[in-house]
Amino acid sequence: MRGEGEVWARVALTRVADPGDEVMGRAVRERGAEGAWAAARAGERLPGAGEQRTAGYAVRAARADPGADLAAAGRAGARFVCPGDTEWPGQLDDLGLQRPYGLWVRGRPSLRLWALRSVAVVGARACTDYGAHMAARLGDGLARSGWVVVSGAAYGVDGVVQRSTLRADGATIGVVASGVDVPYPPGNAELIGEIAERGLLIGELPPGDHPTRSRFVLRNRVIAALTRGTVVVEARYRSGSLVTARRAAELGRVTMGVPGPCTSGLSEGVHELLRGEAVVVTDAAEVIEMVGEIGTDLAPRRRGPVLPRDLLDRAAARVLEALPGQGDAGEEEIARAAGASRDDTLGRLYELQALGFVERDNGRWKLVRTARDGRTRRAG
Amino acid sequence: MRGEGEVWARVALTRVADPGDEVMGRAVRERGAEGAWAAARAGERLPGAGEQRTAGYAVRAARADPGADLAAAGRAGARFVCPGDTEWPGQLDDLGLQRPYGLWVRGRPSLRLWALRSVAVVGARACTDYGAHMAARLGDGLARSGWVVVSGAAYGVDGVVQRSTLRADGATIGVVASGVDVPYPPGNAELIGEIAERGLLIGELPPGDHPTRSRFVLRNRVIAALTRGTVVVEARYRSGSLVTARRAAELGRVTMGVPGPCTSGLSEGVHELLRGEAVVVTDAAEVIEMVGEIGTDLAPRRRGPVLPRDLLDRAAARVLEALPGQGDAGEEEIARAAGASRDDTLGRLYELQALGFVERDNGRWKLVRTARDGRTRRAG
Repeated sequence: MRGEGEVWARVALTRVADPGDEVMGRAVRERGAEGAWAAARAGERLPGAGEQRTAGYAVRAARADPGADLAAAGRAGARFVCPGDTEWPGQLDDLGLQRPYGLWVRGRPSLRLWALRSVAVVGARACTDYGAHMAARLGDGLARSGWVVVSGAAYGVDGVVQRSTLRADGATIGVVASGVDVPYPPGNAELIGEIAERGLLIGELPPGDHPTRSRFVLRNRVIAALTRGTVVVEARYRSGSLVTARRAAELGRVTMGVPGPCTSGLSEGVHELLRGEAVVVTDAAEVIEMVGEIGTDLAPRRRGPVLPRDLLDRAAARVLEALPGQGDAGEEEIARAAGASRDDTLGRLYELQALGFVERDNGRWKLVRTARDGRTRRAG
Repeated sequence: MRGEGEVWARVALTRVADPGDEVMGRAVRERGAEGAWAAARAGERLPGAGEQRTAGYAVRAARADPGADLAAAGRAGARFVCPGDTEWPGQLDDLGLQRPYGLWVRGRPSLRLWALRSVAVVGARACTDYGAHMAARLGDGLARSGWVVVSGAAYGVDGVVQRSTLRADGATIGVVASGVDVPYPPGNAELIGEIAERGLLIGELPPGDHPTRSRFVLRNRVIAALTRGTVVVEARYRSGSLVTARRAAELGRVTMGVPGPCTSGLSEGVHELLRGEAVVVTDAAEVIEMVGEIGTDLAPRRRGPVLPRDLLDRAAARVLEALPGQGDAGEEEIARAAGASRDDTLGRLYELQALGFVERDNGRWKLVRTARDGRTRRAG
């Protein structure tokens, strides 16, 4: 368990050092977050830090006010999740020295549970109609199969895929390169609000922070690490989406690309990727085949529920009770039976799915049958 | 050396058995072409043959008239090339029991030499404008780099790629599923005539024979085996082009696919292939990278000329002499200096290239410099 001092220090570090700063990452690993935070405040030179960097840490540490940041986050409906929390997605530890100090999170669902069954779909901001069409098809298809779609809430492919996921009542996580209370890009403010309301909006930067070019690149490593695989829909040579995909490959995640016309500059980057480590995917079913098919090779599902039913929290247990014993049901119906709001019910359903209790098939929900229940499990 | 009786027997077998007939292939392997032909005439049952097949062989053997076929071929400007001939492309032996009994060939160049540096480009008959555009770009690019383009002279992708190759003064081989004197499809008669005039037109079937559905499929194995790799431009699921590509993969050749919009049914087959053994290619340079780059990994080139200069036949030697000692030259110029026709000169240039004496770069020809000449070889 982390102590309160540790959380406080990690909140401070999101102000003191840039995301992915390996000097600070090493300090946190070697002396803990509290030690690193104390060193920064004291102007102590950390291993690997030059004079300028040390001075920078000290200046930013002097200005940092973790209490004010936590209060501002609270007003924006955000919480701070960090290593040691039950909600921390352990796969981010794969980032090593670049592991986030913590994540600012808006949205009701459990980040850890949602991320278990997630896939990233990213692509060009200035996508073509073709790219938008493919992104929308993927978002819709992944949502209908119960996969959580992760993207950057940007213009173009990111926004399209997250909108289509929400339209299909799917689960989506927006990973932003700003504070989670700063809607960026401004034109996507409505989408970003909806993601925070119905899904999860997460970011490494403290409240009020604005994105910079390097922050977009660093944000991409979180998208890559959080998910089981990354799909690139349209991308020019040397674009940020390719950085995400290559990072995903380095992290041992599946990288996938949606091919397009060779005559389109926006498919060039994808084709380049496909000539390397990435796999061709043309629809959601092919993506799911790559990241792990429901009921076959996804660990929590194969073993049946990973938690005994009576360890579920009360809200989740109520939703689980609301599912019919036979057949399937829609969200509205389940929400009514559980006496909960539709959005809250949906969030719980995705959690219950990650825990192996329920499954989504073509937009409807049903209980997963396990041998332990004395019922046969449905073949995947 | 093969005897005249052997050639006569192989000519007869192109009438007696279907291309790729493994029963006949085994008989030829076990008792030689003359033995197989004698057995067929005698109505002898071959190992693996049922009564019906044996009767079929006998009926067709009784009607076969190798002398008449050779005479008809001669009138159509065709020759018969079979295993044992210096012009026989040894890579066809990889077909094992399905090796052709022989090939009917129209065109001046040496089939063996041209096939050494060849790549197949195949695709849908009913291709889209996009497919036609990509096929034309590939044909043009491969021709400019001195690669020999092999295809089926069919409507759609095949015809487009061979036309664009000819337009760039490139070398092309048409592999037909009919007699080489039967222009099929009729609408491509002019193209087929031009291929025979300026390139090579080859087929397994004797003069006058018409294609059938199964003959198209069997023809594809020759395209796959003859070349270093096969590129599929557009193909529906379960189309003939995929058969060619899969056969190429089985034979250890490189299989490649040109991606296209996922929204197009004509790219579905290609994408399916790309999800398996095939590699994404988007232009001629990427194809060449896969099948072996000029001057780097192509065996005859790396070792310099494979024949001493004074073993070249007179026509080839004259063309070689006509190349400038320094710099490059166009075909017209070389043809003038050699005192030969342009088409004949081109054919010789492609042969000289296969033998490692010359190279084509962006449509112009130059001598390959070798250490043996006391000149340094140009880096690939």
